[in-house]
Amino acid sequence: MDTVFVQAPGSVSNLGSGFDVLGFALNEPFDELELRSTLQPGVRIINEHEYDLPDNPEKNVSGVVLLEALRRSGYSGGLELTVRKRIKPGSGIGSSAASAAGAAVAAGVLLGNIFSKPELLDLAMEGEFLASGARHADNVAPCIYGGVTLIRSMEPPDIIPLPPADLFVTIVHPQIEIQTAYARSIMPQEVPLKHAIRQWGNLGALVAGFYRNDPALIGRSMEDRVAEPYRKALIPGFDAIGAASRAAGALGGGISGSGPSLFQFSTTFATATAVAKAMNRIYTELGIAHHTYVTAINREGVRVLPLAQTRKS
Amino acid sequence: MDTVFVQAPGSVSNLGSGFDVLGFALNEPFDELELRSTLQPGVRIINEHEYDLPDNPEKNVSGVVLLEALRRSGYSGGLELTVRKRIKPGSGIGSSAASAAGAAVAAGVLLGNIFSKPELLDLAMEGEFLASGARHADNVAPCIYGGVTLIRSMEPPDIIPLPPADLFVTIVHPQIEIQTAYARSIMPQEVPLKHAIRQWGNLGALVAGFYRNDPALIGRSMEDRVAEPYRKALIPGFDAIGAASRAAGALGGGISGSGPSLFQFSTTFATATAVAKAMNRIYTELGIAHHTYVTAINREGVRVLPLAQTRKS
Repeated sequence: MDTVFVQAPGSVSNLGSGFDVLGFALNEPFDELELRSTLQPGVRIINEHEYDLPDNPEKNVSGVVLLEALRRSGYSGGLELTVRKRIKPGSGIGSSAASAAGAAVAAGVLLGNIFSKPELLDLAMEGEFLASGARHADNVAPCIYGGVTLIRSMEPPDIIPLPPADLFVTIVHPQIEIQTAYARSIMPQEVPLKHAIRQWGNLGALVAGFYRNDPALIGRSMEDRVAEPYRKALIPGFDAIGAASRAAGALGGGISGSGPSLFQFSTTFATATAVAKAMNRIYTELGIAHHTYVTAINREGVRVLPLAQTRKS
Repeated sequence: MDTVFVQAPGSVSNLGSGFDVLGFALNEPFDELELRSTLQPGVRIINEHEYDLPDNPEKNVSGVVLLEALRRSGYSGGLELTVRKRIKPGSGIGSSAASAAGAAVAAGVLLGNIFSKPELLDLAMEGEFLASGARHADNVAPCIYGGVTLIRSMEPPDIIPLPPADLFVTIVHPQIEIQTAYARSIMPQEVPLKHAIRQWGNLGALVAGFYRNDPALIGRSMEDRVAEPYRKALIPGFDAIGAASRAAGALGGGISGSGPSLFQFSTTFATATAVAKAMNRIYTELGIAHHTYVTAINREGVRVLPLAQTRKS
């Protein structure tokens, strides 16, 4: 095989009460990555999209992952990656994680299925380190494992895949910028014990809700006493979006990652579409450019496509 | 029916990382309660055990539950309860909860199965309020629902029964006294965010472990960064008991409730017995009087016995 084509999904981290530990992958949006082996050593990045991302592989999230994959594989040739990015950087739905996890999975397949899932996770975290200065796994874990993932521990990584419930997801991305570092800095470094107790009660119930495939339980567990009270001030229309979504039938939701995107769960496609309409109405009234997605929890993570499907005849 | 006989189990609260939210019921020890309806109104308590508990129903944990049950039922007669207490008060394995939940269940059956589980829980919390000044549910919930229970919220109560894993439990009760109020007072009222994140990562993994019936996952999730670091100083031999239990093959454990009892999970009866021996050895060396139980997670909670089994012929 000399070419691999993958779809690398967006993802939602900081799911509900699961700050820093719980996330899930999305069916849409996803990036498309095409990776070819070359005789010439080294990594070459070809950006075919509208965003201003570096071509230099040392400074590109996918690039550093591919460089590390080459080092670990011992392969003497090189890799050339064409990136068609669809997930806008800075949207809070795991754009860098898709670049990192997509590159890791594509390299693993192209080099002969040489990496296990924990190794793919480790590789992908190289890209997250470049993007954010931290080897965090909250977005790359659902991209690699699919579905909903819980990070029990990072030293060493202990990823628990949870059964994805049959849920539809509505995402709204208001076109404003939030720096992750700033969103982190405004959170207190101490949590009142009574809020912490409430938080892990909800987190445990949310995990139970996924195992039971129980939308009502998932809905009433979608409560965050730790990050949301501080971060919601960064997102215009936050309370209105939540109220309108519930009025339209959504189960509950919150901030995706550190924002600005917001998400809501629904049990049917029709409800998820009604929720998107409600979100559109509010941001239109507020005069804020935005984009919505009606999608579902992605069960497989990064998807490797057969070449026949990907090549135009 | 004019007599009901129940076995009300001990229970472990503050299970691992589930401070204030996660607990389970034990097969042993259990209290035996015999409740009779009487024509004479009011409640009479007959204590048939070695502990110094009040006969005055207004001051007795079971008594206040029965008085409230009578009020709610509208029954014009009275209730007479014989208490054979086996769970030592102050042991940290839910002695007051057994008195409260046992009385609630017995009254419910005797008065014609008139109370739902949430109503039984509410009744039993009257007893916990008398015992501790707080309507807490961490011990009465597993007594009423059986197995392992998660308290998502207390306002209003939202109890999530989790599938009990196939685990054996070793309990050691060193005969020392710890006041619950004191054990609570030494805990800081603020949790560092990084410890809180670790705590809910472990709590989520523990819940997943019960759903997966995965002893290894349950074992490595049995970590408590919030209560144990402060409370273990109150329990002599705490670290030695943990180390010896793991050496004997235990999966992990911790403080039961606010102590002084300690518990450990094992996958087999043989291991749980070896763990009890290791615990015995340590407290014997330390010269501390103690009692051990080798038991299992109780799946049914308070057990209502057919009268034929309970009456001596």
